[in-house]
Amino acid sequence: MGEPMVLGIDLGGTHMRVAVVDSNGEILRLGKIHSNIHLGARQACLRLISECRMLMDEARSLGGSVFGIGMGVAGKIDRHRGEVVFSPNLPAMNGYLLGIELEKSLGLPVVMENDANAFGIGENWVGSGRGIANWVGVTLGTGVGGCLVFGGELWRGDDLGFVGEIGHMIVDPQGPSCACGLQGCLEAHSSAGSLMRAVEKAATDGLLSRGPLHDRWVKGALTAEGVYLSAKEGDLGARRLFHRMGWALGIALAGLFTVLGIRHAVIGGGVSAAWDEFIGPLRSSLAEHSSFLASEEMMVLRGALGDNAALLGAAKLAWKSLCEKEATSEIL
Amino acid sequence: MGEPMVLGIDLGGTHMRVAVVDSNGEILRLGKIHSNIHLGARQACLRLISECRMLMDEARSLGGSVFGIGMGVAGKIDRHRGEVVFSPNLPAMNGYLLGIELEKSLGLPVVMENDANAFGIGENWVGSGRGIANWVGVTLGTGVGGCLVFGGELWRGDDLGFVGEIGHMIVDPQGPSCACGLQGCLEAHSSAGSLMRAVEKAATDGLLSRGPLHDRWVKGALTAEGVYLSAKEGDLGARRLFHRMGWALGIALAGLFTVLGIRHAVIGGGVSAAWDEFIGPLRSSLAEHSSFLASEEMMVLRGALGDNAALLGAAKLAWKSLCEKEATSEIL
Repeated sequence: MGEPMVLGIDLGGTHMRVAVVDSNGEILRLGKIHSNIHLGARQACLRLISECRMLMDEARSLGGSVFGIGMGVAGKIDRHRGEVVFSPNLPAMNGYLLGIELEKSLGLPVVMENDANAFGIGENWVGSGRGIANWVGVTLGTGVGGCLVFGGELWRGDDLGFVGEIGHMIVDPQGPSCACGLQGCLEAHSSAGSLMRAVEKAATDGLLSRGPLHDRWVKGALTAEGVYLSAKEGDLGARRLFHRMGWALGIALAGLFTVLGIRHAVIGGGVSAAWDEFIGPLRSSLAEHSSFLASEEMMVLRGALGDNAALLGAAKLAWKSLCEKEATSEIL
Repeated sequence: MGEPMVLGIDLGGTHMRVAVVDSNGEILRLGKIHSNIHLGARQACLRLISECRMLMDEARSLGGSVFGIGMGVAGKIDRHRGEVVFSPNLPAMNGYLLGIELEKSLGLPVVMENDANAFGIGENWVGSGRGIANWVGVTLGTGVGGCLVFGGELWRGDDLGFVGEIGHMIVDPQGPSCACGLQGCLEAHSSAGSLMRAVEKAATDGLLSRGPLHDRWVKGALTAEGVYLSAKEGDLGARRLFHRMGWALGIALAGLFTVLGIRHAVIGGGVSAAWDEFIGPLRSSLAEHSSFLASEEMMVLRGALGDNAALLGAAKLAWKSLCEKEATSEIL
């Protein structure tokens, strides 16, 4: 049969990424294709199946054999039904039994997980969370996601279909409106979406002063990365936005550390690439909003796995599921 | 030897309460004396020892025998050293090895716990938290304390010497100053202390309009209970304060439900007597600040044990400790 391997999948709004992962969390092969979700769930699923088949061949060429699949999906997942319940970034997938389709087509067991939880499992396995019993995970992307690791295990709460949604903690009841409809959520201060909305608003209000940010705006080529580059180029408006991002993250994390009696957080996601612009304000805010811990006692770490965190977490779940089945079959 | 019993102690700034408690969480006898902490730690400790002796006699008169003592103390406790590390309400006790003194004098094992944690253990054992796997506990008193119950057990986090300190979550960064030195903590909105400070400030600023609250203020006889009675008598200023209390509690609990993926809270403490004045605003605020749960899915329960919650939780800890010792001795 060859060395056992699994596939780890990260299914995002823009890209699907599939990797062959061994039992040590080593990525042996990695493929990345456009999600093309606008073609509908069935088409996207077929593309994913074909990518998986290719990587299963690659595993064989490495002398291995794929025994299971783990998949992280941006959105609300029904893990037991293998269903994408609701995904704002993959709307065509809503209600689609993606896990079951993959199982049928590939003849392999599939486990699914929300991508922020998968991020947590990945960083816990072979990333910045390794060896830390209790920590808060934050993913900074279009939105702000999160997860909790307690006692070295992912926390699932009451299994209500959401958990770790730090992006929708209120950090300032008088703060900006959030995409979720509430006011003052962390996500309304600290996501790529909130950066873009803030620049839009400043421009519409005629408050976007001349500078790198204004230039990018005029060219109609503004992205979250562009806001970051503008900040690096010294644009004060852009720097203020990253300051606000760090300030809001500090309030949310200080509150969670205070209530949970813990002191570690791991931050990942695409926008964490702007680390040097927000980590200073974040640490100041954490100190300013904490009654019980001194600044140096609170550890805010950058995720170590970059874009591969969710994919590795999904792979870990596949390994875990295989081991549990193995244990059960030995008993039977 | 007679039926095994334990003593549960609640050591507060004003009163010490000691009870004989059986293994079902039934209070068989209860004594209450003034803490008289101004006489110093040693005197207060001697009074407590004498009260314990009296209740041990009572246990014997009931055909029982006391095997251990559990004690809830307002403040930061070193459980392993039996020390009151820091107690704002019992300043003379700071650094005092109260647990060890009690053990020596009474010849019984003593376990200590922070009073908000003891509240949680009590309500979990025989109160409103019974049978609920995951919940947030809040104690409304001079300050605001709290605890977390996860998987039916008290959560201790990283064992940093504090946990569940919901009173010092920031609910409004522009909010009022807190006794802890920060700005906008839950405690600065939702404690007896914050009620009193708000009335003081209104009076000093000449903004305390005529009415029951003003009358109580003029008489110099204002207490948190007086603010509550004024609200019941229709005083708008007093009602606004309880509205603010509920609003702030709603923000804090909504944030914790969202991140923890849970939906139950239990509220106790002396100020929870004003339940009918703050629960409506609390529930509105909870709905207004929650992205993931509808109003009817969130369960905010009133503690069932009143003043006896911490004392019963302390007794439960004593039982647990005795059972663990029993189990160990059986193995040895």
